[in-house]
Amino acid sequence: MAEGLDARTIWQDILAIRRESPLIHNITNYVVMNNTANALLAIGASPVMAHALEEVEEMTGLAQALVVNIGTLSAPWVEAMLKAGKEAHRRGIPIVLDPVGSGATRFRTSTAKRLMEETPPTIVRGNASEIGSLIETGRATKGVDSRHTPDETMESAQALSARYGCVVSVSGATDIIMRGDSVIRVMNGHPMMPRVTGLGCTATALTAAFAAINRSSFAAAAHAMALMGIAGEMAEEQSPGPGSFQVNFLDALYSIQESDVQQRLKAGNGK
Amino acid sequence: MAEGLDARTIWQDILAIRRESPLIHNITNYVVMNNTANALLAIGASPVMAHALEEVEEMTGLAQALVVNIGTLSAPWVEAMLKAGKEAHRRGIPIVLDPVGSGATRFRTSTAKRLMEETPPTIVRGNASEIGSLIETGRATKGVDSRHTPDETMESAQALSARYGCVVSVSGATDIIMRGDSVIRVMNGHPMMPRVTGLGCTATALTAAFAAINRSSFAAAAHAMALMGIAGEMAEEQSPGPGSFQVNFLDALYSIQESDVQQRLKAGNGK
Amino acid sequence: MAEGLDARTIWQDILAIRRESPLIHNITNYVVMNNTANALLAIGASPVMAHALEEVEEMTGLAQALVVNIGTLSAPWVEAMLKAGKEAHRRGIPIVLDPVGSGATRFRTSTAKRLMEETPPTIVRGNASEIGSLIETGRATKGVDSRHTPDETMESAQALSARYGCVVSVSGATDIIMRGDSVIRVMNGHPMMPRVTGLGCTATALTAAFAAINRSSFAAAAHAMALMGIAGEMAEEQSPGPGSFQVNFLDALYSIQESDVQQRLKAGNGK
Repeated sequence: MAEGLDARTIWQDILAIRRESPLIHNITNYVVMNNTANALLAIGASPVMAHALEEVEEMTGLAQALVVNIGTLSAPWVEAMLKAGKEAHRRGIPIVLDPVGSGATRFRTSTAKRLMEETPPTIVRGNASEIGSLIETGRATKGVDSRHTPDETMESAQALSARYGCVVSVSGATDIIMRGDSVIRVMNGHPMMPRVTGLGCTATALTAAFAAINRSSFAAAAHAMALMGIAGEMAEEQSPGPGSFQVNFLDALYSIQESDVQQRLKAGNGK
Repeated sequence: MAEGLDARTIWQDILAIRRESPLIHNITNYVVMNNTANALLAIGASPVMAHALEEVEEMTGLAQALVVNIGTLSAPWVEAMLKAGKEAHRRGIPIVLDPVGSGATRFRTSTAKRLMEETPPTIVRGNASEIGSLIETGRATKGVDSRHTPDETMESAQALSARYGCVVSVSGATDIIMRGDSVIRVMNGHPMMPRVTGLGCTATALTAAFAAINRSSFAAAAHAMALMGIAGEMAEEQSPGPGSFQVNFLDALYSIQESDVQQRLKAGNGK
Repeated sequence: MAEGLDARTIWQDILAIRRESPLIHNITNYVVMNNTANALLAIGASPVMAHALEEVEEMTGLAQALVVNIGTLSAPWVEAMLKAGKEAHRRGIPIVLDPVGSGATRFRTSTAKRLMEETPPTIVRGNASEIGSLIETGRATKGVDSRHTPDETMESAQALSARYGCVVSVSGATDIIMRGDSVIRVMNGHPMMPRVTGLGCTATALTAAFAAINRSSFAAAAHAMALMGIAGEMAEEQSPGPGSFQVNFLDALYSIQESDVQQRLKAGNGK
């Protein structure tokens, strides 16, 4: 059951994003920059992409939230992420970290851990494997390709949240959002979604948009995942494949109505 | 009124682009590379993207126009832009500068100004805020988020054109194209367009395609904005949201007919 | 005639890709990263993009095939390509090289030749101009914009294959796949395909997916080009322009049936 999720408050957040159009500063990977910018625009936020050391601090200084995504990483970008993260802390705006590929290479894992330590994010959003790579839980590590049981995922998310005082948002067939011992589960979504590149990164960007306008980062993370799942379901119904899915997904973000949220949240909870 | 705009000459330019397929060398930002390459291909031009210091000069040496776009900027790219710009001047091919985000950070503003000084562009294409950041007009500056009145925009564009001897193309609800004291206004377009990332950058790339085949950079800049607006209207009529808009926009660039230009230019002028 | 092409074995390869979901490590250009990732996902493979010197070796160590694509090249990326290529050789996994723009600038040509020498690819996939730039064939070189006759293309492909012991896959109206003196011709495809950016790069990525699951790199290269052509035909029938083509192409890769392969391969051979 999706305890803690309420269609009315999700809808109020969507209206707030449309009204306030928060500026989201993205330091993200090359593969998804276009997708995440378009998703942010479709929901009503204002994206900006900037990574140069010469300007990241100033750009974060203008933003209402910061996205740090470590896909297609290289060393100069890590410095930029740290600099931007420090400015975000100084200003008290939320940071959402997407540890793309953490666990797959030492460079990704060590960078993700360094970002957790030096510029602790407000919210970490990743899949079970990435989240698991960020924290020791007593269980033996099982390598990159390991499948994580729901229990293991809960355990990792809980431990990570406890250690860094952050919200942890784990995407999967059921999304799990944790803050300390509290959990929200999101049941919406569709199996076609992993067949489109960058939808996880889009979830991260939308999480930042919600965090920019909702003081509760726990609620923001959950609302973003609910919107992802609901828009994904709306898109899938009109899509014979992942090409049309991408198009219809942006259209759904743009045209979503309160009734869509109400009906699909309820249907998702009934799963 | 869109003085100076004539459907017949716009159409002749489109036919010339299709026939000659000018090679457009783009040094542009990561977010929009795919979009602008596809827009150039759809209208019949040949895009190439290259930014390495080792090859930019040679690539500009093969091209019929150069696009310099400062989104997702970093220091090595600035050097490449200057080197390519100098080669474009040596060869006498048009340069179209898109000062993305100028005014938002000092790095962007100073880079845009440096490019204006060291490799003066044939055409500068940006929004009112970006254009305003490039020139002092006696009015107090108002910061990044300032809204510019039509009068202020005209004043900035005029001053910038006078100082650098370039055409200035300012996109907005009404596009303003200035050369010295002469102005062309383009009334076509649709409010959904700012909800798609990179359409401004696409306008810049198409401006370069027109400048490659039309000796008048003033007419070229205006024709490109007219085509953007017209294709935008064509796309919007079939698009429930910004996802389908992007798809239909490329299809419109590819399949546009002389009658589309005639009817929509007239309708736009009647607004 | 498409000697050597058989619908049944193409279909078996597609099923193997879907079943095994091989991890394809891509070091590729900024313009097409999103496209090629989505094409690989649509056909059932698993893409990863990584270029940092700190991690390329480790990432190649996890992959079943490596794509090296020299579009939007810069010096640090060349080092990463060499490092990844050496790891691919050590592990005995296939390398597919796409020499994008070789022949256009000395940097691209010399980089492509260096990659051929230092990390000889299993398969080289490019257009006639790019392939011609990699090998001297006794005929006078004709420059970048030269058109290559079918005979010249065959001669270049044959010489390149003989010299490096690799498969050479040349895309064009008729695709030519050579290994030594053996040739397979693929007649499928549609003229709209060159009007979409990055479809050549997509062909390269799909070639790597086939090479990951088929021990014969000659068959793999041919099967990938057949799938490209067939999916291109399927997409074109529903596409008024290159925008919708891209969407429908991904949908076709995702939903292709054995009967599509059978009927269209036969129809292509009848051309």
